[in-house]
Formats: sequence, C-alpha cells, structure tokens
Amino acid sequence: MKKIGLFPGSFDPFTKGHEAVVHKSLDLFDEVIIGIGINSRKTYLFDIEKREGHIKELFKDKPAVRVERFQMLTVDFCKEIGANFVIRGLRDSKDFEYEKSIAHMNFTISGIETVFFITDQSYSAINSSIIREIYINGGPIDAFVTKPELLV
Amino acid sequence: MKKIGLFPGSFDPFTKGHEAVVHKSLDLFDEVIIGIGINSRKTYLFDIEKREGHIKELFKDKPAVRVERFQMLTVDFCKEIGANFVIRGLRDSKDFEYEKSIAHMNFTISGIETVFFITDQSYSAINSSIIREIYINGGPIDAFVTKPELLV
Amino acid sequence: MKKIGLFPGSFDPFTKGHEAVVHKSLDLFDEVIIGIGINSRKTYLFDIEKREGHIKELFKDKPAVRVERFQMLTVDFCKEIGANFVIRGLRDSKDFEYEKSIAHMNFTISGIETVFFITDQSYSAINSSIIREIYINGGPIDAFVTKPELLV
Amino acid sequence: MKKIGLFPGSFDPFTKGHEAVVHKSLDLFDEVIIGIGINSRKTYLFDIEKREGHIKELFKDKPAVRVERFQMLTVDFCKEIGANFVIRGLRDSKDFEYEKSIAHMNFTISGIETVFFITDQSYSAINSSIIREIYINGGPIDAFVTKPELLV
Amino acid sequence: MKKIGLFPGSFDPFTKGHEAVVHKSLDLFDEVIIGIGINSRKTYLFDIEKREGHIKELFKDKPAVRVERFQMLTVDFCKEIGANFVIRGLRDSKDFEYEKSIAHMNFTISGIETVFFITDQSYSAINSSIIREIYINGGPIDAFVTKPELLV
Amino acid sequence: MKKIGLFPGSFDPFTKGHEAVVHKSLDLFDEVIIGIGINSRKTYLFDIEKREGHIKELFKDKPAVRVERFQMLTVDFCKEIGANFVIRGLRDSKDFEYEKSIAHMNFTISGIETVFFITDQSYSAINSSIIREIYINGGPIDAFVTKPELLV
Repeated sequence: MKKIGLFPGSFDPFTKGHEAVVHKSLDLFDEVIIGIGINSRKTYLFDIEKREGHIKELFKDKPAVRVERFQMLTVDFCKEIGANFVIRGLRDSKDFEYEKSIAHMNFTISGIETVFFITDQSYSAINSSIIREIYINGGPIDAFVTKPELLV
Repeated sequence: MKKIGLFPGSFDPFTKGHEAVVHKSLDLFDEVIIGIGINSRKTYLFDIEKREGHIKELFKDKPAVRVERFQMLTVDFCKEIGANFVIRGLRDSKDFEYEKSIAHMNFTISGIETVFFITDQSYSAINSSIIREIYINGGPIDAFVTKPELLV
Repeated sequence: MKKIGLFPGSFDPFTKGHEAVVHKSLDLFDEVIIGIGINSRKTYLFDIEKREGHIKELFKDKPAVRVERFQMLTVDFCKEIGANFVIRGLRDSKDFEYEKSIAHMNFTISGIETVFFITDQSYSAINSSIIREIYINGGPIDAFVTKPELLV
Repeated sequence: MKKIGLFPGSFDPFTKGHEAVVHKSLDLFDEVIIGIGINSRKTYLFDIEKREGHIKELFKDKPAVRVERFQMLTVDFCKEIGANFVIRGLRDSKDFEYEKSIAHMNFTISGIETVFFITDQSYSAINSSIIREIYINGGPIDAFVTKPELLV
Repeated sequence: MKKIGLFPGSFDPFTKGHEAVVHKSLDLFDEVIIGIGINSRKTYLFDIEKREGHIKELFKDKPAVRVERFQMLTVDFCKEIGANFVIRGLRDSKDFEYEKSIAHMNFTISGIETVFFITDQSYSAINSSIIREIYINGGPIDAFVTKPELLV
Repeated sequence: MKKIGLFPGSFDPFTKGHEAVVHKSLDLFDEVIIGIGINSRKTYLFDIEKREGHIKELFKDKPAVRVERFQMLTVDFCKEIGANFVIRGLRDSKDFEYEKSIAHMNFTISGIETVFFITDQSYSAINSSIIREIYINGGPIDAFVTKPELLV
C-alpha cells in the first residue's frame, strides 16, 4: 500500500522548521501532502495565495510533495486524500502536550495515527507567531523562512 | 464539619474527564458543587442553559452533587456556598503549571486550598477546546462527552 | 465511612514541604497515616529510627496522624491499614509526570485513588536529595526541616 | 564598557515578581532600563500612564533604574538605548519554553543575549493575567503588587 | 528502498506500550527490528534470554518483525542491520526532553533520523521501572505486560 | 564592586555547550571561575587532571577565566573565592525544574543569586551523560567537545 502522509498546519508563514519536517518525511512516505488548514474564525497575517505559492515554490523539484488547502477536520481531509498518517514536528515539551491531545483525539474519532519528527536543532526555536511579530515590526525574517520575498 | 468541594469550570462542554473527576470527588467530599463560571468577556460555543441542563442530567441520581452558575471570583463563590476546597483535575504538565499559579493565588487571597485529581488515563487527552473544534467541523464528540445530544 | 489517607514516602528527611501536605490533608481526612516506605535495595542518609521519631515528634499533638513503617507495595499497605486514598504533594511539572504514572498504575492494580496537594509556595523548592547534599557538606538545613536536631 | 540591561514587558500590571527581578539585576548591571512595550494590536487593563507612573514610583530611589516606553522590536530598542542584554524572569517550565524561543530568535536577528533570573520563590505563582482577573472581579491584589493604589 | 526501522530499548520488561509502538510501526516500515540493548554496566531484573523469548513470542505471527540483541551504539547497530530510522515511543514531556537530546546527538554523529509515535492513551502511564517495583513486591503486572508468565 | 561569577559543574566532560556559557558570561562578569566540583561519592569517566587541563587549554587566552577544583557546598566555595553569583546554563524544561530548586535553596542558605543563560541553539541537545555513553562505545565526540584529544 502506498504510504501517504498529511502535514497539516496554517503555515503563517511556512518556516525552515516546517521545511525540514517535509524533507525528513520524504524518506519515509511515498507522498507528502502539505495541507494548509483554513479556519474561517481566524485571521492570518500572510495571504492564503501567497502562502500556497511560497510552499509550492520551495518544493517545485519534489514531485512527491503536493500542496493543498482544506477547510474541514484534519482526519476528514486525510480520508479525502487517502492519507494514512498525519505528520507533525515537535519542538519542545510545550508543543508535545498539545500535540499529544490532538493525536489521541484524532485517533479516537478516525483511527488515523500521527507520526512525529523532532525539529532540527538549528530550527527548534523557530516559532511562526514570533516570526509574525518580527515581520510586523519590520525586522528581518530570512533567518527563519526560505525566500520570504515570495510572501509579500 | 461537612466537607464541601467546589468543582469550577466553564464546561464548554462538560467532558467525560470532568465527569470522572466528580465521581472521584464524591468519595472524598460530603457534597460536590459543580460551578459553571460565567465570564462576560468570553463567548461560549454551547448555551449556558444547555450546559447546565446537560450536567444536571448526568448527576440526577447523585443527591450529593449540585450544579450552580457563578459570576464572581472562584474563592468568593466558595465562601458564598460554604465550600472548604476547590477541586481540579490535572491532565498534563501544561495544565499543572497554570493550575499551580491559580491555586497559590487563590490560597493567598482567601486561605482556601485546592485539591487535585489526576484525570483518568483513558480521558487524559480530552480537551474541551479540541472538542469544540471537532463539533464545529461536524465531527463526532460522543467519545468525549456523555449524552452530547443534550447540548444541542 | 471514615476517610483515611496514606501519605507514603522515604522521608529522608521529612521536610517542611511534607509537613505542610499533612496539615492540608487533616482538613480533608479523618485520619492521616504517614507511611515510611522501606526499600531494602536503597540506602538512606538518616536512620529509620531517627526519621520515625522525628516525624512522630512533629505531630505529637495531632491525634489524627499516625506514623508507620511499611515494606510492601504502597497499595497493599493501604489495604492493610484501611486507607481509601493515597496522598501526594506536587512541587513542579517534573514531579507531576512521575506521580501521574504511579497514580495510574496504582489505580489499575488496586482501584485506590491518589489525591494531590500542590506544595506551599514557600516550600516548593525544597527537595530531599538537595537537603541531603547540603547536610553531608555541613551546611544548615533548618530552613527546610523543622527540628533537624532530632535526626542526628 | 558600561553594562546596560533592558527588562521588557507589558507590565499590566508590574508585579512583586517583576520588582524582585529588577532588584536582582541591579547587582549585575550598571543600569537597568524597564521598557514598557506597546503593542497597538493589544488592549491593556491598566492605563499606560498609570503603569509608567507606578513603576517610576517604585524605583524613585534607584538612580540606576530608568523607565521607558517602546513600540518596536525589543532588540531594536536595545540598540537605541545601548543595552547589551535583555533581562527576563523565569517562573516555571511553561515560561521557560516560550522565553527560550524568543531569546534564540532575538539572538539570531541581533546578536543580543538574554540573561535570566528565576523568580523569587514567594512570587513564583504571581501571574499578571490572573491578577487582572482578580482585579476585574473586585478581589484584593495588594499581595501581588506593591502600592496597587497607584494604578487606579 | 526498503524501509527498515530499529526500535531499541532494554525492555526490562517489554510492556503493552512497547507492543503498541511496534504495531503502529508496522504500518509505516517494511521491516521492524526490535533491538534489545545490552549495557554491561547495568543490571537487569529479567534475564536476557527470557526477555528475548518473550518478545519473539509476542510477534511470532508477524514476519516483518525481527528481535535482535546488540551491544554497541544504537546508530552503529542501525548501520549493521541496514536500518534507516530509529523508532521511539513518547509518553510524556519528561520522556520528550531526553529523547530529543538522544535523537539530535544520534543524527549529528550518524545522519540517522528518529521517528516518534505517541504512546496509546491507555498505555501512557506504563513505566518499566514501576513495573519492576510492582513485580519485586509480588504485585500483579499482567495489566501492563502481555503474557508475563514468559518472563519468569 | 568587581563582578565575579562561579560556573560550577562536574564537567565530565566540558562540552561546547559549557564553553558557550563561559563566553556569554565574560560579557557580563569581570571574572569567571570555572569550578570543577568533586564529590567523593561519585565516579567520573574522565580523570580530574585531564578535565582540568582540558578546560584550562580552552581558555588559555582568556585572562578573566580561572579554573578551580572544589569539594564543598557550591555557595561555600562562592564565599571562599569572592563570587557574587552562580552561573548556570539551561537547555530544556527538565533542566529548568532542577536548577530552580537548587537556585532557591542556595539563595535561602547563603543569599547568593544564580544567573542563567539559555544554551546556544546548536548546542542545546548536548548532554554530558550521552557523550560519555558515545565515548564508552567508541563513537566520535568531537561534534560536542572541543579538542577531545586532551581528555584521553
């Protein structure tokens, strides 16, 4: 059976940490879908078109990577695209507790498992919400995001 | 002296994890008040009438349990109803740090102690905010909430 | 039914933090047994007779407190003395994770619940192993232990 | 070279925990700037004038302490005022993970280091957001804030 | 390329939690090697022959699972058996921090990645060292270990 | 007053993470004493002469750094050498809880404060005990220790 993993997130923006998780996943999965979750009750700093274009550009040479938007439960989207696993990165113990709850509840309602990678050491401090704060205040974000010019 | 414990929360919704905490508390307290805290600056997914009715139904056979709403400091409500203890459940270390701060500050301003139960293993991943997310997206919540039909 | 709680530990030594947990427990339980666990594979800094005498002295005016030694599973000792609950103090999130595992496993093999108090803020840093290190190096331990002269 | 440290925060309100961090910092730095960060996307409970006046009053006898407002990246403000270090207090492991990310990202974009003090044991439970909750509900906050009357 | 994962541990004993990690891994890997690490400076409660026999019995119907002993660095054993990934289970945030250090250091010296599964909720409290304590004191361990009679 | 900081540890071995903490400290302190603690109840992998020589070599061009051995309470050694502060590095939340207890207890018995630096991101996974494990098994440790040949 083909192994398909869904890497879901809001990716506002997609960081070097996210990028590394996708590269690790490619060694384990036949196909990796990067799913940009859309939540109508949230506002995003970067435009959905820009975020999608940015991620597509980063993986344009990786045919096993596909970028999709979704606006439903993550596990429902897994079923729609035939993904057997959810993929998540873990940075620190704060991440861990929250991800554990989501993984268990996802498994309970759907039987879909989550597989975790620990974020590369050099990217383990990268946090999308702090990047947004830096960006809003005119600071440089290229240490944390590849090709940030695609987001503007 | 009669031992009365207050189990406060927003219970949006009241989960199987909360339910288990009340059952454990009944072995230790003569009376357990489930206090639904109302914060006028917050919005809730489930209606206060529905939440109250739901919890009452779950404990209708337990005369030692009473369900009340309150809109004041938790420790002030304790004094109003004669509760000597606040009761809280702990799921994970993220919970713990926050609950520790609240328990210490409550004790400082009122002298009221907090007693903790660790959430049943099978319910330790249940998180009201993730339940709301599942519910909003049309997913099933009956694995996490007893008689969820009473909330609609 | 009489509410009896067992507060188990090696108490090497019994600290002001432990002392506060017993005082809190007395408001909730009819009887509190302080159980000094003896593990033949461990070595202790303070003599078992001294530790037992020290704790007895601290609670000599509290008839609801009893001090006992035990050399068996904690939950087996609970059954022997008729305790319905294990009592534990929690200082920090490191404590929490370990105590959670023990509490769940105790419940699984015996049905006995554990109830937790968060250590008083002023005693939350007190750690028996650091006290032993200070004591061995000739430092003062009276800030952490009441009547430490009884241990010598 | 003169050692100047910036202690940034929203200080809504400035607590006894914050106060202790400044006192510790004075033993290590030649000058300590307390920087009240202003974020136009946030709302504050206490007025900026009141917060500034309150902090100034608390340190009026300490010529090495200066109180300033800033509305830019923390590290940009460091450069503007010539601060070589950011100063932060740590209460618990939840704080720690977040502060670690900010400290690493600040270092990456500016080369400025962060130095940490662990909050005094007696103030380690003090949390500005819980203080605000108590204040809004008419509870006493003088156990957590020196001269709270200056904030009204 | 064939995907081979190494699940290393001392497995003293191999718990239901470990068992679940292997079953999850089988959905992702073509072959799963359970590697019993032997450290000559440690003593084990259960005999290596018994531990090996026990694990082999549990997976006798799973041809994709192989049980091996090893006495070298985990990443050196990976290379010897052709494993591309180390597999680990995560129970709680205490586990996480330690596993993160090992995973990063393993990657640094060998380029081998670690993939993580979060332990099944119902097994998340299971801890081999507490099982040993229960076993030594004559308590029942069949709630935590499948076919414990094979270990004696 | 001259600012002298003591950076205590067993340094078995002294890692690149420790090295970075000393470099950061030099920007804040006039003098940094690296104190190799000797505990007669512990055994070390690397010889004390080798450890001391190794650290001295690493800082031979830094006149503000001094390397000393000590066999007493850390705070007693501070007083002996005139250090006003203890310096510690923090890697993760597991470190944090333990360091917090030690820092509070040190302050209680001596009035000496501890100042913390967060370990450089690229060294945050480095753990002396894992390095020892790698070394014992013949693996390379030069990614974690500068000039490891000096330790042999």
